[in-house]
Formats: sequence, C-alpha cells, structure tokens
Amino acid sequence: MSGHRDIEKILAELTLEEKASLCLGSDFWHTAPVERLDIPALMVTDGPHGLRKQPAEADHAGIGGSNPATCYPTASALASSWNVPLARRVGEALGVETQAEEVAVLLGPGVNIKRSPLCGRNFEYFSEDPALSGALGTAFVQGVQSQGVGTSVKHFAANNQETDRVRVSADVDERTLREIYLPAFEQIVKEAQPWTVMCSYNRLNGTHTSQDPWLLTTVLRDEWGFDGVVVSDWGAVHDRVAAVAAGLDLEMPPQLGWSDVAIVEAVRSGDLDEAVLDVAVARMLRLVDSATTEARPGTTVDYEAHHALARVAAREGAVLLKNDGGVLPLALSSGQTVAVLGEFARTPRYQGAGSSQVNPTRLDVPLDELRAAVPDGVEVTFDPGTGEEAVALAGAADVVVLFLGLAAEDESEGFDRAHMDLPAEQVDLLHRVAAVNDRVVVVLANGSAVLTAGWEQDAGAILECWLSGQAAGGAVADLLLGAANPSGRLAETIPVSLEDTTAYLNFPGDSGHVRYGEGIFVGYRGHDAKKQVVSYPFGHGLSYTTFAYDAPTVDVAGSHAGGDLTVTVTCRVTNTGDRAGQEVVQLYVEDVDASVARPVRELKGFTKLDLAPGESADAVLELASRDFSFWSETVRDWVLEAGEFVLHVGASSRDLRGSVTVQVDAPRVAAPLGPMSSLEEWLADPDGRAALAEAVGTDEEGRFTGTLGDAQMLTIIGNFPMQALAGFGNVPIDRPQLAAMVERLA
Amino acid sequence: MSGHRDIEKILAELTLEEKASLCLGSDFWHTAPVERLDIPALMVTDGPHGLRKQPAEADHAGIGGSNPATCYPTASALASSWNVPLARRVGEALGVETQAEEVAVLLGPGVNIKRSPLCGRNFEYFSEDPALSGALGTAFVQGVQSQGVGTSVKHFAANNQETDRVRVSADVDERTLREIYLPAFEQIVKEAQPWTVMCSYNRLNGTHTSQDPWLLTTVLRDEWGFDGVVVSDWGAVHDRVAAVAAGLDLEMPPQLGWSDVAIVEAVRSGDLDEAVLDVAVARMLRLVDSATTEARPGTTVDYEAHHALARVAAREGAVLLKNDGGVLPLALSSGQTVAVLGEFARTPRYQGAGSSQVNPTRLDVPLDELRAAVPDGVEVTFDPGTGEEAVALAGAADVVVLFLGLAAEDESEGFDRAHMDLPAEQVDLLHRVAAVNDRVVVVLANGSAVLTAGWEQDAGAILECWLSGQAAGGAVADLLLGAANPSGRLAETIPVSLEDTTAYLNFPGDSGHVRYGEGIFVGYRGHDAKKQVVSYPFGHGLSYTTFAYDAPTVDVAGSHAGGDLTVTVTCRVTNTGDRAGQEVVQLYVEDVDASVARPVRELKGFTKLDLAPGESADAVLELASRDFSFWSETVRDWVLEAGEFVLHVGASSRDLRGSVTVQVDAPRVAAPLGPMSSLEEWLADPDGRAALAEAVGTDEEGRFTGTLGDAQMLTIIGNFPMQALAGFGNVPIDRPQLAAMVERLA
Repeated sequence: MSGHRDIEKILAELTLEEKASLCLGSDFWHTAPVERLDIPALMVTDGPHGLRKQPAEADHAGIGGSNPATCYPTASALASSWNVPLARRVGEALGVETQAEEVAVLLGPGVNIKRSPLCGRNFEYFSEDPALSGALGTAFVQGVQSQGVGTSVKHFAANNQETDRVRVSADVDERTLREIYLPAFEQIVKEAQPWTVMCSYNRLNGTHTSQDPWLLTTVLRDEWGFDGVVVSDWGAVHDRVAAVAAGLDLEMPPQLGWSDVAIVEAVRSGDLDEAVLDVAVARMLRLVDSATTEARPGTTVDYEAHHALARVAAREGAVLLKNDGGVLPLALSSGQTVAVLGEFARTPRYQGAGSSQVNPTRLDVPLDELRAAVPDGVEVTFDPGTGEEAVALAGAADVVVLFLGLAAEDESEGFDRAHMDLPAEQVDLLHRVAAVNDRVVVVLANGSAVLTAGWEQDAGAILECWLSGQAAGGAVADLLLGAANPSGRLAETIPVSLEDTTAYLNFPGDSGHVRYGEGIFVGYRGHDAKKQVVSYPFGHGLSYTTFAYDAPTVDVAGSHAGGDLTVTVTCRVTNTGDRAGQEVVQLYVEDVDASVARPVRELKGFTKLDLAPGESADAVLELASRDFSFWSETVRDWVLEAGEFVLHVGASSRDLRGSVTVQVDAPRVAAPLGPMSSLEEWLADPDGRAALAEAVGTDEEGRFTGTLGDAQMLTIIGNFPMQALAGFGNVPIDRPQLAAMVERLA
Repeated sequence: MSGHRDIEKILAELTLEEKASLCLGSDFWHTAPVERLDIPALMVTDGPHGLRKQPAEADHAGIGGSNPATCYPTASALASSWNVPLARRVGEALGVETQAEEVAVLLGPGVNIKRSPLCGRNFEYFSEDPALSGALGTAFVQGVQSQGVGTSVKHFAANNQETDRVRVSADVDERTLREIYLPAFEQIVKEAQPWTVMCSYNRLNGTHTSQDPWLLTTVLRDEWGFDGVVVSDWGAVHDRVAAVAAGLDLEMPPQLGWSDVAIVEAVRSGDLDEAVLDVAVARMLRLVDSATTEARPGTTVDYEAHHALARVAAREGAVLLKNDGGVLPLALSSGQTVAVLGEFARTPRYQGAGSSQVNPTRLDVPLDELRAAVPDGVEVTFDPGTGEEAVALAGAADVVVLFLGLAAEDESEGFDRAHMDLPAEQVDLLHRVAAVNDRVVVVLANGSAVLTAGWEQDAGAILECWLSGQAAGGAVADLLLGAANPSGRLAETIPVSLEDTTAYLNFPGDSGHVRYGEGIFVGYRGHDAKKQVVSYPFGHGLSYTTFAYDAPTVDVAGSHAGGDLTVTVTCRVTNTGDRAGQEVVQLYVEDVDASVARPVRELKGFTKLDLAPGESADAVLELASRDFSFWSETVRDWVLEAGEFVLHVGASSRDLRGSVTVQVDAPRVAAPLGPMSSLEEWLADPDGRAALAEAVGTDEEGRFTGTLGDAQMLTIIGNFPMQALAGFGNVPIDRPQLAAMVERLA
C-alpha cells in the first residue's frame, strides 16, 4: 500500500466524531466517507471464491441478488490442487473482477484449519494442515492484491465451527495456536501483506477475538508486523471501545448511533486514549488512500477466460481417490452406453450456502458436458436416481457414472454437520447399481469429507470433486474421459469413522466452551499419532499415469544460530507412465527425539511437477529453522532442539517414497537449575551433579552412596524437586545450602 | 471423632511457636507433641493395602525394613472384587493392625481415577470409574476407622500420573473434576468422615493442591463438610504459609526450621491471620484428641485370620477374562500332569514398589499351593520359562498353567509405563507353549491393565489376578482347581491398543502441564463414546456358573424438586448353572437427550449376589437425583434435566441384559433471555417469541415475514446473539428496544 494523502494532516483535521465514524462502516458494505476531507467510502464484498456484490437495494445479509460473477472452486477444491501458482492465478482473476465492480476489498480468503470434518463452513477453508493453508492463502492474497484491491484474511482466529459461533469460547493452549491455528495467518501476513485481516466471531480462551489485544495487537502487529486494517466479521463486535483498544479498526456492519457514540464518549471520559483511536483511524485512512490510489476505473472482465480458469482449477482440485482396474479414464467406443445417474449430474452442487454464495456468470452441467464430450455413437442415458429406473439403466449400460454428494441443506455456513455420511438413499442407490453393473464410477460433490468406508467397495473409481465452482461440470467431463489427468491431492484426511477424528470428543462443545483437547494432533497428525487406519490419507490422490521417486538428497547450509539455516531436499521424480501428468511431491519432517510430544511427521513443503511421459524433474524443497521447531510453552517462543530429523519425501502422508536424515545443530535451550529442578535434572546436568557430589559426598571412586546411589530409590524420588527432598533427609541439603548451590551455578 | 480435651482452652494456652509446630510433623512419621499441655505425638504410616511401620532407625523414605504386616491385595485387585462388604472387612483388619502397632492414622486409601493405564501408581488406585472407587473407598474407610484409627484419603486431587508428579499442572475443567476426579473423595468425605485427607503432589490448573484454597477449603470443607485434617503428601508443601491459608493443616515430613519459622513470621507480619492458623491447630488438636481417646492399647492381631481374609480378598479380586471350552476349573485326575511355567509361579509378584510396599507376615507361593492342592496322583512339573525346557514340559503335560505379568521394575510409584505390553519374551514363550499344548491357562500378575490383543488367542483361559497380596498364591490355587468360583469383574477396561485410550494424546504431558483433553470421557466412557471394540470391557468377568437376568422393574418415589427422588431398580437374577457363584449386577444410566455432551452410559450402582445353584435373588439398586445429573459449567452446580433416562442392568458395561426407561421430572434450568441470547433461543422461548412478534410484526396468520420467516436464513443467522443482529437490519430492533424487551421479560 502506498498513497497520496497526508495522513497526519487529515488526522489533525478530523473531529472526534469523524474519527469515530471512520471506525465503523456507513452501511452493510461500505466504510464511512468524510466528504469535506475528500475521504470516500470504500466498498467491500464477500467472498473467497467469487465476488458477491449486492446492489444497493438488496437484503444485505441475504444470499441472493448479487451481481453475476465467476464462481471459482471453493477453497475445499482449490486447496486440493496443491497448486500454488494456480491459487495465485485464481486470486488475480478475482482481483480483476473486484476492480471491475469498483470494490476495494474482497473478503477472503478463509484460512481456518479444518479441525473437524463436521464444521459447516469447511468448504470455505483450505485444509487441516497449516503449511498447505498458508502457502495457498499467501498465493491467493498476492494474486488478488496484485490487481490493486485488498483482501481480508479470515477468520482470525480459532473459528473452527459454526455451532454457537458468536459466543463459544475456543479454549486452546498457546502451543496449539502457534503450531496449528495461527501459522497460515502468520505466513500470509508476513509474505503477502494483506490489506485487512478479519477477526472471527468466537471467543478465544474466554475473550471475543474482536476485543482481544493479545491476538489483534501483540501477535498480529507487534510480532508479525501487520500494518493493515483489522475488520470485524459481520456482527462480531460487542464492546466497540474495548475493540478499538484491542486493535480492531473497522466495525462491520456499523451499529450506528451506538458504537460511534460509545467511542466518542469513551474518549471524552478518558476511558479511551484518543491516541489509540488515532492509530485505528490512521490505518483506515491508509486503507482508503491505497484503495483510491490503486483503483483502476474502467477495468473490464473477460468472463470467458475466467470461466476457463475456473475449469482448470476445478480439474486440478478433483481428487481421484480410487481407480480399480483402470475403470477411468472411460474408454468408450461407438455403440456403448454410459448411464449417468444422480440428480447432481443435472443440477450440480458447486458452491456452499451462506455469505460466500456467488451468482455465477454461467453454469456447466455435468450431464450436458459429458454428452457433448463422449465419442460419436456413444449413448448417454440419465436418471436422477430417485426411482428404480436408475438401476435398469445401470444394468443396460457399459459403465455407470453415479453423481453423489451432500445437498445444500446438509452443509452450510451457520451450522455444523452431525455426521459424515452420505444420505442413506444415495448409498442404497449405489448398492443397487453395483449389484447390476461392476463398472461404477462415483463422482462426489461435497464441501467437506464424507465417509467412504461403508460403500467404497461398490465403486470401481471415486472422483472427489468437492464444491468446485461454475465450471465443475466441464472439468468432470475432462477428467472422466481423459482429456485431463487427475492431479488433486487430499487437503483433508478421509477417516474410517467420525469417531476416529481427534476432535470428536470435543466437538462442538457446549456451555459456551469448546475445548481443543486434541491439541496439535489435528487431521493426519492425530491419525498418525494414534496409528489409525484411514480410508484415504492426507495428500493422497491418484493419476492416470505413474511416478517413480529417486532417493532424496539433502544439503544443509547456514545455521540455526546464525539465523540462516537452509535445508534443501532434492528428489528426482520421473513420469513412468504413458500420459502427461502432475505429481505433488510432499515433504514431511519427523523429529526423532524431542523433549515435548510432537506429531509423527508434519508437512513442511510440497511442489507440483508437470511431467510428460518419461520425463524427469527435480522436486526441490527448502526448509528453514522454523520447519524444525516447536512452540515451547516454557520458553514461550519457537525452539529448535538440536538432533536428528528424518525428512520423508512422499506422494501422500502415508505413501512415503524415500527419506534422508539430517543432524540439525542448535544451542541448548534449558532453564537453569533451581530449587524446583528435580533430582533427575540436577543429576543430568554435569555442573549440578558436581555440586551435589560436593554437598553430599561420594565414595572413593566418586560414586554417590545412600539414596543417591540407590537406583530403585531414584526411580521413585528422582522426579522430586530438590527443595522438596531437602525435607526428607535422604538428600541432606537444607534450603539455605540449596540456595547457595543454585547461586554458585548461576 | 469425639474426645476429652477442651480444644478452645488449649488453643488459648498455646504459644504462637507451639501452634506453628503443630502444623508440621516432628519427624518423618510423627506429628509434633506439646508435652507441657499433654499433647502427644501421633504416628502415621503407609499404606493402603498393609501397614508399613518403620522402626525408628530405618531409612524413612526407604522401602524396606518395616515391621511385618499382612499384605492384602492392592487396590487394583480389591476393586475388582466389586464387593463393598469385603472392602470394609479388609479395612477393619487393617484398622486392627494399625491399633496393634500404636499407629493413629493409616495413609490410605488411594482413590485417584485411572485416567490412563500407564500411570505407575495405578495398582494403588481402585478404578477408572468414580462410583466404583467411591463405594469401595467409603467401605474401606468405614472399616479402618471402626477400629478407632484414622485414614487419609489420597491423593487429593487429579494426581493421575507419576511423570513430573510434583510439578506438573493437571489442567482439568471443572465439570470433569466434579464428575470424574472428585466424586470418590466427595462420597467418602460425606459418608465415612475420614479423619484426614491427603493433598496430592501435583498442581491443579496451575496451583499446587497443597496451597489451593478452592480445593482444600471451598470444595472439601465448605461444600462437602469435611471437618478433619488435611495432611500434605510427603514433600508436597512449597509455601507453608500459603498452604495454611488454603486449608492445609499438617505438613509432612516437616521442613523444620523453615516452615514453622515461616508461619510464625507470617503471623507476626500480619501476612497470615492468626485466626486462620488457629483453625488449623484446632483441627490438629481434635485429631490428637480422637486418636488418644480411641486408642486401644494392647490390641493384638490374629495374623492367621488376616491371612485367610487376604486369601478371600485375592480370590474375589481375580478376574476370569476368558475360559474357552471350559478349560477351567482344571479337571485333573490321577496320572495327569500339570506343567506350571513362569518364574512368577515360584517368585510371585503380589504388590507394587514405592511407599506402599509392605513386609508381609508370610507369603503363599502359587507353585507350592498348586502342588498341595492337586488330587493325589497328579504330577506338577515346573520351569521358570527362561530356557526351552518349559516348552518340553508343556508338550508333555495335559494342561499348562503359565504365570505371566509385569516385573517390579516395569511399574512402580515414581514413574509411568511407556506401553501396555507384556514383556516380549513372555509373549514369545506363550506362543511356543501354545504350539505344543492346546490347553494353556494364563495367570496374570500386574498392577494395571496389560494388552491381551496380541496373544490371547493362544490362551484357553486367562485369569487376571492383579497384584493380590501375600495370599495370592493360595487364592490362585483355589480358583484354578475350582475350590473357589471366580467372581472378580474388571474395574478398568482392557483396550485393544494403548492408542484407543482417550488420554493417549495427552499423557503424561510436557512443559509442566498435562491437559485432560478427553474431559469426562475416561475409561469405558471414552471407549463407548468412540464406539471402540475393546478386548475386555469394564465390568467384565466370567464365572464357572451362569446367571440369568429377568427384566428389570423400576419404582420412582419422591421428586427431584422435593430433594427426595428415589429411583429403585429391581432385577431378579438366577444362578442357572450347577455351582454356587457370585454375580455382580451392574446398573448403568443413560441420559437420552441432554443439552450437554454426556457419556453413553455411566455406572451408578452395583451389587454382588451370592447364589447357590438354581437360587434366585433380587438385585435392588437405588438411584438419587445426583445419579441423573451433570455438572453444569454455566450454572456451576449439578443440574438434572427433566426427560427420559434408560436404566440398563448388565453383567458388564457391554453385556447389558435388560433395561427400563423412566421419565424424570425436574424444574427447567435456563438462563433468562438477554441481549446475548441467540435468535434461536428467543424463538424457542414462548415469551421471547411473542416479544419478537410484537416488535417486528407478523402476517395476518401470526407468522414471521422477512428474515425471521426465512428458514434458510435462520439456519445461517439463527445462532447470532440478538444484540449482534440488531446491527444487521434483518431484525430491525435496535439496542434500546432490545433492552426494553429484555426488561419486560425479566
């Protein structure tokens, strides 16, 4: 952001009332203007996968009635592409549409972690993994903002459910926040400088995020260097003065006559320092300045090109879960019949309900696209599958393509799912169809994972398309018929059962609280830690071709102590099949021996290679200190513990193709010995051990006698603090002696 | 407790220094005397399953060297008896031995919940279930104290691991404390008035329990009415003044010259109100008075009778997990051979290591007992199983009895286990033995559950004996040969894998904290909630006879509102086999529809019936309001929600033989509607709905129009607080209007 206005001068000229007004919108979609000082209102609109600009007369919190805009794949689908440049291209296209509609800020992306598959808004979020979410979100923001409009990274933070979403307190320990729920925000803020960040509805450890100074100021601004505007999620402000003080600059929609008055009164009464208000107002002024400076009036949109991009993105986001016997791509020849079954083939589900719902510029219908794309002489029959006619068509067909998924009323912003099942009548239809045809392809449309364990045996192939935007129909035809090669990978695990998800016992909470009892063990981190069989692991996805991985190599440069540690893993990958295809090469880091509980392994890098048949290329993945570190609750900072790390290169979190071990060096981080250090800790420390030996004496060979020389006793009292043992008499050191020992060691 | 001394008078005569001295021990095992006022020192000793009175010259924190005493089954075994009168009888016997040794207080029982099977001290605790722990603990305390000596119920509270036990903070929400970790203490305090309660080592939500006023005063004394002495676990006091203020009366062992001085200085400086100190001293004086009044000098012990009681208890605590094809009881006749294998047959493991370790009066050796008990002409061969000779003996025998278990170094006070496996060489031996003999009986000795999933198929029968005291050898012979009929039931689940235990991801924590992330879903509550297969469920245990259950009936008397709700479940049970046997009839309560997450079902009653062949008897189980209630985090009290409850009667938590449904009535507990009540809550409340209708208007038929009449919109914004919606315009009620509506409803 850079602009023309003299912010300090404007600030000096603004009245207190005008300042307060700038910290609220003027209506549902606009910031407040100050016309006498040439400060225009800015327009902001939903949403993450397409522009939802409502005309002035619309029901603002309503869903319909927005101007037509390209409906790109939702985040659930875009994330499954694992394609960072693609996320940027989608962002760029969205940026163009935003400019064309004279909107200043697009309210997205949503980078909340999919803590539970049940969260009703998961379709708006990328992944269960923070590294994948952060990489895609960063590219998306860079893409949008490259067009001179802003983004709003949301929902900050720990907004991982819809149940009681405005009141519930997400009770999360700091390590879990730092390692799982904050990193995607952190990466985007540091690497893409979003114009705005949107606070969430929920409370975080008891405090509404809209008025949480630790979150909005200490972490976001002081630590991460965010210099943009924090905007409230719509309706998230409950105490406007506390929110200003915490670092929330813009309340949306405005509680006019209430929040503005409260700010003015608080400044007058001295409850709110006007300097604090000025900081918020200055940020608003800089946002206005950037938006007006970077506005590109007259921008037009090539909607055909954007639809084509949406189709590419939908193709890349579709995950081929299963393909037994090569049933896909469909090898059809004249005279054959394809039975296309299921209402979703005719009435596709391609986006989710709620504030993100876009009015698409056009809509590809899978059935139509398939009919247009099959070879001449191939018959495509269709039945919505609600009667028995579908089974008859299936029995008469050479192959069946069955469109299944969740209805709009099954998942939406506003509520969470209660289970992960497909509707029973759909599963029943599949069973009946499979009974008469052994070549059944299931195409799924759903915003968050559905269980496959009860029915997957009936499907020869399963193509998970998520909610994939207005061009999903064409993309599906491309993939089924082999015009495109599937390259999507799961951004979320498909577990065997809902009960296997680690949040299960603590979702969605009750009594105003949800305990993040699983801590850092979210998604595959939980399934791996519990050694659970899953239906399809995180990172999984099939292709119509095959890839071979050479043994990875590693190069270590710089050092942690020097702040420039760079660990480069290189792995040569070859397309060993006879089709061009893309492979997502994934890098998982395993900490072999840590002083705290850590995940079995964590995604820390990935790249998508596009390889012609027989072609080879190097996947080159770089790691830095942070990729080896954990958040220490005792040090309250990131800590890298020296030692051995295994770097696994794989095609999924459970299809590891090779590994390489590195030793990473780092200074030891340990609290100094004190009275509450345990006997074991004293004995493990060379200086502590020597001090103890001096105090209690040893035998002639320097060995401890008595309790300290008794291995069994040490197993029983070894974890006692030295100070507590002082009273026992076993270790005859009284408090003053111990204090003196501690002082000498310091 | 009742006594002779005039406490008020003594208090008035005590100097400040004398008062302080009374709040500390005088040495490792004694309270402080004040001879000039005829206040003697009292002796206290470990432990829960036998007296560990060390002579004066012993190494006090050491393990050996105590006077001989009857070693009863540890709590792990006693609990498996599910026999409340038996727990009382054991308590009575312990009380007699305590009197005979002129000890005033026996430091037990331990009623901590087995949160994880890994806790190294689980052998000292009863169960994963609070109702079973509470019932047995109450009887045990009543038994001991009936002999005029005191008990110390420990370790209060949330001391569920040994790792970092003196420093770790157990981070537990209040509901989980109230429903899982505190009820056993609560029941014992309310029903058995223990002379003392022992605080634990750990911190609870950040505060050491030794100085936690909420735990030691608000809950223990103010709510539960405890009027005895709180004593520290040995070495648990870190700030003596804070501990006095919190309600800790007696520090053990004393930090002489430190803690007493600190108390005196704090009173002098005004940091500690002397009245607070006086309360603690008065409690100590009452304890001394009771102990001296109830002392029975010259008490003698019939150690033969106590050994016989230990044998009965060991028999009742042994759980017959499996008995395929009726391999047990052993049907032996002259000329047959029994191969007894495994070192534990010759060198039994019968108690755990640490402060509870007893010097037994005698010790039954299983091998000897079996040899003595087999019919004439039966040969008993033996091999410790460390070479290959054992397999040869097995191949030559008619039946094999293989003694397996955990070595003393595998589990102990002081550290936690890292896994639940039997030693690999034992499992290997079993495999080799089973390969040559298809009649293998496994007898287990271990202090906490071991996994059976990897080897149970090789055993025809499995008898889990836990650590069952000095008479375990005779008890095993009784059970194997059919002189006694197994009647133990699992007090802890045997899961298929360690990873299936809900504490797994959060045990034992690190960085000074352990998060009780599984909340109330401990033990079978977790396995049931997650629909997990288990190896052997909570409450399971086989018999040599069989039992039939009639359909249960229920009688409801009194009311919750009236405070006298009594729900009586009666179930007629018949011994349908040809041997006398005992059946544990278990009652599990299921709340069909609750506003908070609840366990699938919870044990709320049980009784052990002793039935001759063909005999029938009624199991009569009574429930009160509390048995239907949950701890509400919002109301911060127990709440009974009116509605349907299913009362399941069963032979284990997963062998439910019948059920009966009751409707329980209770006044509605709901917060009044306010600005932060959600739109859904307003609409669900008849008065709230009417107020809304009046404010926004309806159509001619009284139906809402606009947003409030739009079902899809309600799914999206229904969980918004009314106050937040006021800013949206959808529900055109501004803050003053809303405030007025709330006021009118109040």
